[in-house]
Amino acid sequence: MDFLKTLGISERNNGISTGRIWRGNTSDQPLSVLSPVDRRVIGSVLQADMNTYQSVIQTATQATPLWQLTPAPKRGEIVRQIGLKLRFYKKDLGSLVSYEMGKSLQEGLGEVQEAIDICDYSVGLSRKLHGYTMHSERPNHRLYEQYHPLGVIGIITAFNFPVAVWAWNAMIAAVCGNVSVWKPSSKVPLSAIATQKIVAEVLKENDLPEGLFSLIIGRGATIGDALLRDKQIPLISFTGSVPTGRHTSKIVAERLGKTILELSGNNAIIMTEHADLKAALPAIVFGAVGTTGQRCTTTRRLIVHDSIFEKVQHSLIEAYKGLRIGNPLDEDNHVGPLIDTKAVDVFLKALTKCRQQGGTILIGGEILSGKQFASDCYVSPALVLAENSMPIVQQETFGPILYLIKYAGPVVNAINLQNDVRQGL
Amino acid sequence: MDFLKTLGISERNNGISTGRIWRGNTSDQPLSVLSPVDRRVIGSVLQADMNTYQSVIQTATQATPLWQLTPAPKRGEIVRQIGLKLRFYKKDLGSLVSYEMGKSLQEGLGEVQEAIDICDYSVGLSRKLHGYTMHSERPNHRLYEQYHPLGVIGIITAFNFPVAVWAWNAMIAAVCGNVSVWKPSSKVPLSAIATQKIVAEVLKENDLPEGLFSLIIGRGATIGDALLRDKQIPLISFTGSVPTGRHTSKIVAERLGKTILELSGNNAIIMTEHADLKAALPAIVFGAVGTTGQRCTTTRRLIVHDSIFEKVQHSLIEAYKGLRIGNPLDEDNHVGPLIDTKAVDVFLKALTKCRQQGGTILIGGEILSGKQFASDCYVSPALVLAENSMPIVQQETFGPILYLIKYAGPVVNAINLQNDVRQGL
Amino acid sequence: MDFLKTLGISERNNGISTGRIWRGNTSDQPLSVLSPVDRRVIGSVLQADMNTYQSVIQTATQATPLWQLTPAPKRGEIVRQIGLKLRFYKKDLGSLVSYEMGKSLQEGLGEVQEAIDICDYSVGLSRKLHGYTMHSERPNHRLYEQYHPLGVIGIITAFNFPVAVWAWNAMIAAVCGNVSVWKPSSKVPLSAIATQKIVAEVLKENDLPEGLFSLIIGRGATIGDALLRDKQIPLISFTGSVPTGRHTSKIVAERLGKTILELSGNNAIIMTEHADLKAALPAIVFGAVGTTGQRCTTTRRLIVHDSIFEKVQHSLIEAYKGLRIGNPLDEDNHVGPLIDTKAVDVFLKALTKCRQQGGTILIGGEILSGKQFASDCYVSPALVLAENSMPIVQQETFGPILYLIKYAGPVVNAINLQNDVRQGL
Amino acid sequence: MDFLKTLGISERNNGISTGRIWRGNTSDQPLSVLSPVDRRVIGSVLQADMNTYQSVIQTATQATPLWQLTPAPKRGEIVRQIGLKLRFYKKDLGSLVSYEMGKSLQEGLGEVQEAIDICDYSVGLSRKLHGYTMHSERPNHRLYEQYHPLGVIGIITAFNFPVAVWAWNAMIAAVCGNVSVWKPSSKVPLSAIATQKIVAEVLKENDLPEGLFSLIIGRGATIGDALLRDKQIPLISFTGSVPTGRHTSKIVAERLGKTILELSGNNAIIMTEHADLKAALPAIVFGAVGTTGQRCTTTRRLIVHDSIFEKVQHSLIEAYKGLRIGNPLDEDNHVGPLIDTKAVDVFLKALTKCRQQGGTILIGGEILSGKQFASDCYVSPALVLAENSMPIVQQETFGPILYLIKYAGPVVNAINLQNDVRQGL
Repeated sequence: MDFLKTLGISERNNGISTGRIWRGNTSDQPLSVLSPVDRRVIGSVLQADMNTYQSVIQTATQATPLWQLTPAPKRGEIVRQIGLKLRFYKKDLGSLVSYEMGKSLQEGLGEVQEAIDICDYSVGLSRKLHGYTMHSERPNHRLYEQYHPLGVIGIITAFNFPVAVWAWNAMIAAVCGNVSVWKPSSKVPLSAIATQKIVAEVLKENDLPEGLFSLIIGRGATIGDALLRDKQIPLISFTGSVPTGRHTSKIVAERLGKTILELSGNNAIIMTEHADLKAALPAIVFGAVGTTGQRCTTTRRLIVHDSIFEKVQHSLIEAYKGLRIGNPLDEDNHVGPLIDTKAVDVFLKALTKCRQQGGTILIGGEILSGKQFASDCYVSPALVLAENSMPIVQQETFGPILYLIKYAGPVVNAINLQNDVRQGL
Repeated sequence: MDFLKTLGISERNNGISTGRIWRGNTSDQPLSVLSPVDRRVIGSVLQADMNTYQSVIQTATQATPLWQLTPAPKRGEIVRQIGLKLRFYKKDLGSLVSYEMGKSLQEGLGEVQEAIDICDYSVGLSRKLHGYTMHSERPNHRLYEQYHPLGVIGIITAFNFPVAVWAWNAMIAAVCGNVSVWKPSSKVPLSAIATQKIVAEVLKENDLPEGLFSLIIGRGATIGDALLRDKQIPLISFTGSVPTGRHTSKIVAERLGKTILELSGNNAIIMTEHADLKAALPAIVFGAVGTTGQRCTTTRRLIVHDSIFEKVQHSLIEAYKGLRIGNPLDEDNHVGPLIDTKAVDVFLKALTKCRQQGGTILIGGEILSGKQFASDCYVSPALVLAENSMPIVQQETFGPILYLIKYAGPVVNAINLQNDVRQGL
Repeated sequence: MDFLKTLGISERNNGISTGRIWRGNTSDQPLSVLSPVDRRVIGSVLQADMNTYQSVIQTATQATPLWQLTPAPKRGEIVRQIGLKLRFYKKDLGSLVSYEMGKSLQEGLGEVQEAIDICDYSVGLSRKLHGYTMHSERPNHRLYEQYHPLGVIGIITAFNFPVAVWAWNAMIAAVCGNVSVWKPSSKVPLSAIATQKIVAEVLKENDLPEGLFSLIIGRGATIGDALLRDKQIPLISFTGSVPTGRHTSKIVAERLGKTILELSGNNAIIMTEHADLKAALPAIVFGAVGTTGQRCTTTRRLIVHDSIFEKVQHSLIEAYKGLRIGNPLDEDNHVGPLIDTKAVDVFLKALTKCRQQGGTILIGGEILSGKQFASDCYVSPALVLAENSMPIVQQETFGPILYLIKYAGPVVNAINLQNDVRQGL
Repeated sequence: MDFLKTLGISERNNGISTGRIWRGNTSDQPLSVLSPVDRRVIGSVLQADMNTYQSVIQTATQATPLWQLTPAPKRGEIVRQIGLKLRFYKKDLGSLVSYEMGKSLQEGLGEVQEAIDICDYSVGLSRKLHGYTMHSERPNHRLYEQYHPLGVIGIITAFNFPVAVWAWNAMIAAVCGNVSVWKPSSKVPLSAIATQKIVAEVLKENDLPEGLFSLIIGRGATIGDALLRDKQIPLISFTGSVPTGRHTSKIVAERLGKTILELSGNNAIIMTEHADLKAALPAIVFGAVGTTGQRCTTTRRLIVHDSIFEKVQHSLIEAYKGLRIGNPLDEDNHVGPLIDTKAVDVFLKALTKCRQQGGTILIGGEILSGKQFASDCYVSPALVLAENSMPIVQQETFGPILYLIKYAGPVVNAINLQNDVRQGL
């Protein structure tokens, strides 16, 4: 696979970087990265221990004053160059995302494009970091607001968006004068390493010091927790599940730190009797099966007016029959694998519970077998007749399950169903 | 009429004030103010000549530095008190507006309420007069914006909103640190004098100097033009017709002054085949006949889909039959007189032209006679079948004429008709 | 004391209100409120138990939809009336604040004025609750932001600002469409009851339902903690010490709620060699001894350039000699009592530690005796020679201690001292 | 000169473009462009007549709907590419600016950089074109603001910034959804043609239609005036002198169009007794002689406290002695020629008047002769002792004259001198 070489991914990769300098801890077992596409080992990663962690944070902290005093438009110029570099490697990085994480190639490319777009946005932002200034009620007395950088920002990202979530956080942090330390999900470390290498080219071309953009691959229980508890890190941006989000929120709040939390969802689409089926159905199917249902914004519930329920159900079954499942790098396929076999278990167990709670699986919901599915990570997306009040419907199952829920009467009844998912959180 | 006494309106009134001090020029003929309601003389006004004009501007200019250096929240406190004082006199001032200008009492009260609302808004604004501040691309270099007051603001208002338009301009100007000089329409000077007296109470209670809020009643050709040409007045806010607006715009622009122009309109309402008639009809009728059609926001054109045209036309004729026309101080009446007999002429001539150009008057369009209409200013609102392209439809006639225009096909056709009024301006 | 009667404070007072309806739990011992001024019992308060708590929250929750759907400018109108009512009772409420809490009458009045000012600000805000709207990168697609009210807001206030802190939170919450539940410090419940009664008059005059502004007096360990843990309360605004703030932050964050925290401070003033002593000294003294040093914004450290240190020290000693300490309702006095005898202990112990750590008390630091100080809550403000690194200097002691700290060289050295207080938090 | 070829400048050039298509009117005499550097003809330009003018406006008007409906971020993407293209041609375009206009190469490059910076800014802006949205005081009623593009924007630029001023206007207009028509100064048409060709590459690469960015070279008296009077052009952005600015303002205002006017200046620097001479002097000299004094922001007056006047005067004379004047493309030179011999006349006459009015020329103020100055456009920058009240000081002379003005007493005296230049405008 050429894109691995282009991106600088080897058989064995260092997992820690403070910019252009790379390190790995060789005393521990390296992390082996399997593709959910074909179960092949893509490469291995030397992870961080607490010593490397401390050293990364120290370098980041030391880089802070210089970056804070760099004028914002100059910081924006670096981000502009990162955007250009991401454009240059878009095809390769999108392919790696698709191969390492399992989402379709189009989604992989789209994810890199999101990172590029946020760079553009940040460049403009770098010339708009206004505070307010005004005269106070005291004569001849002026007040003004000045936004100060926070310092070292910790970014903990989930497996499902291995590049974009980092960019949302790191690019905006950077134009605002912050340095960042990125701990990606251990399920997709190679996309992170490739991204860091792209950034490193810009750092080199501009002769910038170490510590501005750091990467640290390691276990959540050690390195992740160290970030949460570290008083040198005033802000943690965390993307992941609600339970880990609660933990993050509590630990950081107790030390009076700040958090940005992007957690679970349980999105619903409401179809009233006036819905335009032709426009709605492709959106529903993409919303439900895109990224194999592994997005916080995945459509998990479809709340349909009883007057059109039969028709919608029928059309969806037909649409699900036509889904092409398989290698996501093949652009003819719509749906790739789940992230790993554990995720397949969770998916199957959720469907079992669903049946026990009274749900009916209309189509899908099975693990696929055959040569092309040898990684055991491929499932057929499930369409399920359900009630909103069923416990399993109230929860986020991170896979392609779409619950069809019927409502009658005015749309406010549907909105009430839509909003009635508190206990799941 | 008790409200005249309460408001301090006498038989003969001084028409020039720099705050609490009043003056009038006795060498000229005083301006006699007739009510369109009953043609009685409400009172007369001693107007300004160029000497009084110069003196008012001098006092206003001298008051500028003090007011500019008064902290905005303290300026807001004065405006808050003006708002309270307007609340106190709301009933009386609303009655005078109705009697002097001819709009219904409810509209007169509503107009004073608008003035009160803008006071509330301005009080909040007085604590939000922010500029932006940010660091520039040069290291260790900060930029900040500071809004400076302009100085003396000239406010020229039209007859149809004798109080509210002044308030929109003067209250916001005041919290921003500007002093204002108000030249109201010579058709409604008493409402202006009453308003100034209300403000004067607040000025007195706070022991403020002359020149912050000035009033100057005089001819447009002398006093109005002097304001436009005066280099000491950096901003003219003008409300009135397009032709006078063009003149204002040109004169002030040539001396590189600023203008706020609120000019003619030719508003249309579009009714598609899906329109909710029950909600729409009262809104249309009020939009068309409120203030006897003498608002820049009056509904002048109704563009109706052909599928509902007959029904709408029928319903409107019924609604127009039910309109009660008469003394606006009588709360049972919907429609009062036009501002003067000249306005009645313009109204009748427009309808004559309309017929000549192919329009059909469905109902109304006549001058009313009888004891209660002895002022000769009362007309019956006209409902007219017309084409949008007719020259008379392209113009604003400042009276209660509603043109019914049919359209077919998609709504974009109606929008094109709505927008096709350029030549009228 | 007439102001008690005017404000509706009796010997025995109900401590729970959902608006105009009052309740108290008679099964528990009522809370007895002593004035630090003269140790007299001002009155007693019947507090909440968990049953009354649940009932208050239920009423507040039920009032939420109505208030959310009330247009913001109408909500602002209610807040405007609260501002007028506070103006009406300013003298009485300011006196009660002074008598119950111990701050000087001028500060008590100033605190009510702050509440009035925030009402004015909120009225303006009620017409400015903008979201942004724009077109997206998808053709013919528009995005818009709409700020939604949160619901029931919990407001926990500290003893030192018994009225203003509530107003900052409750008035802004109210115009934004939220209802609020206020738990004041158990040391100053009567100021809260008086404030609630003032609000109740406005509620009555506007015929508003119960639940919009609630008051609940009770123990922190039960009622306070219930608020923190209550999932029906999406936002807790807490004002108080850092340790309780940490607890609040953690508890609310774990349930993914929001917090506004206003916690301890350790403010410093820096005097360079160019300082204008005449302007600075009164500001320093007021900053250090105002509210008897019981403000999060109290000036606790004075960092003075060595070239002027002697002079500043001498001038401050002279100024401290002139301080008049005594009954805060007597406008001749500058400094009133501490809140209670426990606070006096903390103050004295801090000074003992300070001496042990090498500090020198230049003046003050003693408990005052005599008939006028019979409440045992009066101390003489302390001026102390100290080093910034002393542990006691690194902490906030909630009383009138000002540490004089010397620096040499450029101002950046002073700034570094100013910022070197992390461990105290 | 290689840069001419690279930029596509020939001996004879078409002066009208609607994007990629070029036209010129061959019936009139072509405009011959002389360099002030060496009086050589750089090339000639076929200009527009009224027919070509009408045709350009028609194409621009027709392109408007497509561009208005293109989502702003997509418009921003085009501007981003223009920014990249300008980066690519920066050296060449900067050289042409320097050669055609006479400013130093460094300033020529700096001007292109300004154009690049505004592209970056505009890209960010394209994702921030917000209006406000909020609920009104009417229940269940929402208001929102939507910024609409204006249509065809006319941009009239001055000779002294042949590229940057266009970019400020055209790039922001473009992301806001407007198309633009550019009429540059007839003194620097080749820089405009080169810029348009750079834009055309981006238009071609993105397969965009004609009419988005148009260029029209022609006489002010015909083409310029046609733009001012054209009702199809809602906004004119004009940069130039005050007299032409007044004319523009009046003509456009009378047709109720909008203007952006960037006119003359008469900047002063105030030096108090505390001024840091070492930092100030280079800034003053660059401010006074940069672009050979042909900037609206040129420093024309230096108001110096009498206590340091002698010293400042002496230092400035020394600095002026060291100025290197000559071919601006030679990076060793500080000051290039004036734009033409007419500008030299104006410069010399101003100095004559200055002497007559009592001024003393301390150094400079002479036309330079010799082989390297054969274009007769080179002068030595003048340093003049003057009074602020002298008529010549009150006016902008568009060349390198710096008036030294003495003040005594507090800084407010200097500020009053600084502000006392009204009659010059």
